[in-house]
Amino acid sequence: MERAQKYLSYFLSHRKVTNELIKKIDEKNYEFKPTETSMPAGKLVTHMLTSFYMFAKTAKEGSPAVFGEKFDEIAPDLSEAAENYTEKTIEVISSLTSEELERKIDLTRVFGMELTGSQLLQLAMDHEIHHKGNLFVYVREIGHTDLPMFVSRG
Amino acid sequence: MERAQKYLSYFLSHRKVTNELIKKIDEKNYEFKPTETSMPAGKLVTHMLTSFYMFAKTAKEGSPAVFGEKFDEIAPDLSEAAENYTEKTIEVISSLTSEELERKIDLTRVFGMELTGSQLLQLAMDHEIHHKGNLFVYVREIGHTDLPMFVSRG
Repeated sequence: MERAQKYLSYFLSHRKVTNELIKKIDEKNYEFKPTETSMPAGKLVTHMLTSFYMFAKTAKEGSPAVFGEKFDEIAPDLSEAAENYTEKTIEVISSLTSEELERKIDLTRVFGMELTGSQLLQLAMDHEIHHKGNLFVYVREIGHTDLPMFVSRG
Repeated sequence: MERAQKYLSYFLSHRKVTNELIKKIDEKNYEFKPTETSMPAGKLVTHMLTSFYMFAKTAKEGSPAVFGEKFDEIAPDLSEAAENYTEKTIEVISSLTSEELERKIDLTRVFGMELTGSQLLQLAMDHEIHHKGNLFVYVREIGHTDLPMFVSRG
């Protein structure tokens, strides 16, 4: 589980920052979007939370079937949703074995290629960091100027 | 050099997208910033290009001294700067040996910790993806709606 612990601390070094940003978004700004064609803040956050969980679960189960599954209901309060999904994601990452991290998963239909569990986790990290980068601009536009570093060392 | 090649293709899968976005920023928008306290587009791009090069060079040289060095002049045209810096960065990454990737570098004064060359490269990747995530919002606000995927598979 040593490798799982490394992924867990890598995940948390970014997710903690995501969650700090989410706390700054009041309910009245859930529909905020910087342009007409942008994803609204609430939808962007939900996309981040559910995607990482789904990627981690796919690594755990070794099958792309997770991509067709329905999600558990998402708390309408974004900070509560962030807490719930972070907790569930921590559980899955912590449980990953070396075999699961090295196992190849056929993701041809979803990504056009095979990925190992650990390659999929790296893609999940990149996806989180990318959308967190979007979110930083959103939160500044909502009116916050006291923003965290992009990665947490705490 | 097999590991260097893996880092190179990982780098390019994101840098190609960065460079696509940079091409969409006309000179009249170099000063664009989404809010009063945001970094202007031109400065953000320059920060991304020089930072990755500096991180890679630090991994190559095994010393934090690079952080105090002056940069070569940066082309005033951002697309030209992107091309030059991407080329220089490719060269450094391609040349990294396993020893250099595993060597610990004392970055206490810069980041408060020691990092191996490969940990530093991962931080450089995260930094690039983070700011590219910012840049996506900028470019949409500048008026573009036909944007690439966050990662290139080409």
